[in-house]
Amino acid sequence: MKVAIIFGSKSDSNIMKKAAECLKEFNVEYKAFILSAHRVPERLSEVINDIEKEGFECIIAGAGLAAHLPGVIASQTILPVIGVPIDAALNGTDSLLSMVQMPKPIPVAVVGINNAYNAGILATEILSLKYPELKEKLVNYRKQMKEKFINENGEGVEL
Amino acid sequence: MKVAIIFGSKSDSNIMKKAAECLKEFNVEYKAFILSAHRVPERLSEVINDIEKEGFECIIAGAGLAAHLPGVIASQTILPVIGVPIDAALNGTDSLLSMVQMPKPIPVAVVGINNAYNAGILATEILSLKYPELKEKLVNYRKQMKEKFINENGEGVEL
Amino acid sequence: MKVAIIFGSKSDSNIMKKAAECLKEFNVEYKAFILSAHRVPERLSEVINDIEKEGFECIIAGAGLAAHLPGVIASQTILPVIGVPIDAALNGTDSLLSMVQMPKPIPVAVVGINNAYNAGILATEILSLKYPELKEKLVNYRKQMKEKFINENGEGVEL
Amino acid sequence: MKVAIIFGSKSDSNIMKKAAECLKEFNVEYKAFILSAHRVPERLSEVINDIEKEGFECIIAGAGLAAHLPGVIASQTILPVIGVPIDAALNGTDSLLSMVQMPKPIPVAVVGINNAYNAGILATEILSLKYPELKEKLVNYRKQMKEKFINENGEGVEL
Amino acid sequence: MKVAIIFGSKSDSNIMKKAAECLKEFNVEYKAFILSAHRVPERLSEVINDIEKEGFECIIAGAGLAAHLPGVIASQTILPVIGVPIDAALNGTDSLLSMVQMPKPIPVAVVGINNAYNAGILATEILSLKYPELKEKLVNYRKQMKEKFINENGEGVEL
Amino acid sequence: MKVAIIFGSKSDSNIMKKAAECLKEFNVEYKAFILSAHRVPERLSEVINDIEKEGFECIIAGAGLAAHLPGVIASQTILPVIGVPIDAALNGTDSLLSMVQMPKPIPVAVVGINNAYNAGILATEILSLKYPELKEKLVNYRKQMKEKFINENGEGVEL
Amino acid sequence: MKVAIIFGSKSDSNIMKKAAECLKEFNVEYKAFILSAHRVPERLSEVINDIEKEGFECIIAGAGLAAHLPGVIASQTILPVIGVPIDAALNGTDSLLSMVQMPKPIPVAVVGINNAYNAGILATEILSLKYPELKEKLVNYRKQMKEKFINENGEGVEL
Amino acid sequence: MKVAIIFGSKSDSNIMKKAAECLKEFNVEYKAFILSAHRVPERLSEVINDIEKEGFECIIAGAGLAAHLPGVIASQTILPVIGVPIDAALNGTDSLLSMVQMPKPIPVAVVGINNAYNAGILATEILSLKYPELKEKLVNYRKQMKEKFINENGEGVEL
Repeated sequence: MKVAIIFGSKSDSNIMKKAAECLKEFNVEYKAFILSAHRVPERLSEVINDIEKEGFECIIAGAGLAAHLPGVIASQTILPVIGVPIDAALNGTDSLLSMVQMPKPIPVAVVGINNAYNAGILATEILSLKYPELKEKLVNYRKQMKEKFINENGEGVEL
Repeated sequence: MKVAIIFGSKSDSNIMKKAAECLKEFNVEYKAFILSAHRVPERLSEVINDIEKEGFECIIAGAGLAAHLPGVIASQTILPVIGVPIDAALNGTDSLLSMVQMPKPIPVAVVGINNAYNAGILATEILSLKYPELKEKLVNYRKQMKEKFINENGEGVEL
Repeated sequence: MKVAIIFGSKSDSNIMKKAAECLKEFNVEYKAFILSAHRVPERLSEVINDIEKEGFECIIAGAGLAAHLPGVIASQTILPVIGVPIDAALNGTDSLLSMVQMPKPIPVAVVGINNAYNAGILATEILSLKYPELKEKLVNYRKQMKEKFINENGEGVEL
Repeated sequence: MKVAIIFGSKSDSNIMKKAAECLKEFNVEYKAFILSAHRVPERLSEVINDIEKEGFECIIAGAGLAAHLPGVIASQTILPVIGVPIDAALNGTDSLLSMVQMPKPIPVAVVGINNAYNAGILATEILSLKYPELKEKLVNYRKQMKEKFINENGEGVEL
Repeated sequence: MKVAIIFGSKSDSNIMKKAAECLKEFNVEYKAFILSAHRVPERLSEVINDIEKEGFECIIAGAGLAAHLPGVIASQTILPVIGVPIDAALNGTDSLLSMVQMPKPIPVAVVGINNAYNAGILATEILSLKYPELKEKLVNYRKQMKEKFINENGEGVEL
Repeated sequence: MKVAIIFGSKSDSNIMKKAAECLKEFNVEYKAFILSAHRVPERLSEVINDIEKEGFECIIAGAGLAAHLPGVIASQTILPVIGVPIDAALNGTDSLLSMVQMPKPIPVAVVGINNAYNAGILATEILSLKYPELKEKLVNYRKQMKEKFINENGEGVEL
Repeated sequence: MKVAIIFGSKSDSNIMKKAAECLKEFNVEYKAFILSAHRVPERLSEVINDIEKEGFECIIAGAGLAAHLPGVIASQTILPVIGVPIDAALNGTDSLLSMVQMPKPIPVAVVGINNAYNAGILATEILSLKYPELKEKLVNYRKQMKEKFINENGEGVEL
Repeated sequence: MKVAIIFGSKSDSNIMKKAAECLKEFNVEYKAFILSAHRVPERLSEVINDIEKEGFECIIAGAGLAAHLPGVIASQTILPVIGVPIDAALNGTDSLLSMVQMPKPIPVAVVGINNAYNAGILATEILSLKYPELKEKLVNYRKQMKEKFINENGEGVEL
């Protein structure tokens, strides 16, 4: 039950650590790598290979600009790859399109711009198909989220 | 090993059947539903409920325009929901943004505009974590795709 | 003569309170709710139900990102629903398109990005069809606005 | 219970007649005018004046390009004005922005690009606040729409 | 040789005064008005009428959002109307499109977003057709601009 | 009273001839040139020079893609230059931005995408400052346009 | 003096053959390959390796959608890589952004959408630094292009 | 082995000096010029002429807004011209489109928005075809970049 989090630059840590925080909430093991599809493509290939051998089951990849990282990873593995478009320019639309418009038959599962937390949830949902304890946790998480939301926001709000 | 394919209108069948074709290639069972988040929200909730009870493990949802369907489904289940933005206007950008920008903590896993085939692959990758026979099929599929690609396109091409 | 103001998060209060301020100017009663289409869909349905029973006659709904809230509300009521796209990313274009491109036959009446004040005016215009005192107030409001505008900006301005 | 439908050119009739068709379904009286904010501004003002005197209660205005028509109408009346952006260029985004971004305090209630049918529904919802028979019709319309949708699309669909 | 500068709100003065500054450089008389197409349409019509009678020969109009002001002015005069799109949202694209996409046969002469200085130059160029002294000034202005540019930036620059 | 119409390729003739047709309606003399800022920059400079000497008073320039033509012309003359963005790709947005965003102090007066007719009107308005007979024609043109519009579209239209 | 032309699918041949036609005009040798960054990444790496060994000096790479091909090639070679964005969706903007926004320090030299001919010219210009005969050909090409342009379009055109 | 760096305004120095810094790393001689296509077109032509005579082999040109500079240069030389779109408005999309959409047969080699460093790398790659010592430096640069990247980012990162 291990997720790899890969992103291209230390400057993206603030965004991507929300994925890690989410996985911690669900006690899903993860390992994070800073790797670039363009700067160290060979090293990236090695790490993808290692990830598969070490039994990682899902990859979260974040990148900005011409964000090839998730797609390049997806072309080298059959593990599900979740893409997090990072806003480094153009409000993140360059990154979003570079990820989401992946051609047939190499998909990337793209979540919202800068929304690494949702990538963590999605990874947990994916893993929960295999790990029933995660399913239960997700159900509880939803339940608690709803209760907390309703408690905090009550029966109406002052404006 | 069952996938639900949900979309909002018969006119989207041509797009969405590519997801079905993909799943057939991998012998993944699927069932397709035409359901609308806006027209029949109660019926949609019932079907989501049934889907969970009947052991479906992944949902592919396609929609155009203000494409709420995948997000509305995702808010009612913890199954992974794959969104297929359909180009019904604005080249599909309205649909893409309506799906991909889902707020925390309810993700949709979005693939390319009109690219339901990739949704089928992504569903298969997700299921393959639990079903080793799918993993093998995916590895073979990739291998055959590569061989076919190289055979067809050979050592260079006339222009 | 009651308007419900619904939005998804406390962080949107600053935007949405302009709707409330507008309604106060016209002595239109309102009640505000923080509710999310994705986080608490069941609670949202209950509140929509209550709103209808308690005789609310118009709903103003504000949301950012994949802004499903107004559309989801509109799918569960026949009260007119006014949507306020909130700029939480992409200058608010994601929210605008998620609201305005609602499919047939479930409309949302969308006003400008972050322009909750205009939502208040629109709600007042709608209610004024039924409540003649509001019509009069709107006519006076326009008249005073014009006088104030002309007084303040006079016969020409220094540049 | 009368709605005015105003648009700028005969070439927009195909789009705008969907609003009329919708209003006919609900037995809402309407009158249609071809009027341009830029070509015949004085005539437009006269018609707005007449519309108010003749007891029209809602205006649907459709336009393409730099679509000033709904906003110009809204600046001259306190009746609710529903804007239908028409795709005459740029996929209708020029028209959408020209309508929806109306400044404070003159709103236009904008529906989807080319979606005049939804403008008809919205007008009906607005009028139903005052006319209970319309409320009942809308409730029935929704109910029948749901039944028809479910009957047509059944329990699952072949793909 | 008089130019009217019209804009919709005091908050736009900082942008629009660059037009005034430009006109002063060329000793072109101008008068500035704060007027809104939506808030005070009747007063706007009066002022346009006055402007024509008082012999103004060109109008510069600046506005943001759904920027109808230049187009509404153009529909009421045959004087050339120069539009300055002001960035009040969406980087000014809403304003740009609301001005530039004016339908046949009512043009607005649109310059760059926030670029009121260029509106001043364009007005001067237009007036120079009739006033030879302006033509000479423009020729000198260009000459001096070029000399200044070359003097300041010299034969190469340190980087 | 002469206008130069310049555009970059025979394929743009269909668009640009609408400017010519408009000028003919007003008996404004024009001469059309196919010239490219990128292919024949020296020849373009010669023609601009000739145009000025021969007493042309306004230039209409149409181009698509990276549409430098109007700006390059404007940098070489102080005559008013009207730009017509032509849709050769991207719905004409590339051309629009390449023209309208001209830096200080070299404006281009941009009209709507493909809207060469409006360029003709704008040129006529500009010339009318100097030539009173044109002013009269423009006033009549507007008057007739209004009468024709009202006659054709009458008191209401069937939908 | 050899250029490699690489693109991802036979369906792009019509676009990319314009690059080949251009190179033929300059007698620049080329070889074309259909290769996909996502489908056959290992084969792509082999071919890039071969290309370098066989003395190719420039690579033209065309792709649509999430167009990673030129960037992935550029990450594996220090040869200049020219990118041709192909319009397969969204008017080619997805492809353009996926190419042009390459992060530091791996550039792609991007030309216009679908403009493979310009890629051929750019390759020829690049090679001409080393091969003086190409420089001469380019100078002649420009000269002839200008003469042809002027001959064809003459001293003015009928509109 | 000399590169010309040309840009339109001192305010762009901060962006463009990254190109210079890159060239310094590779000991490629450069000279920088502030020149504007619109303000000093004749001076620009002279400098382009000088550049060619003095044996410059590549030109890097940066500009914002309606960024004609690289295209105008390219129309006057057969040297490869690298365009750097500078974000002066609209996130740089106006500049990007004004450069990249150059018509046949005058290409500009466009790199990322504000990414002058990449322009320096691209110039070096282009020159390396002729100067083998540069090729070696580029190979080493890549090697060191990779080693540095891997050393800095190691075997995994804390999140």
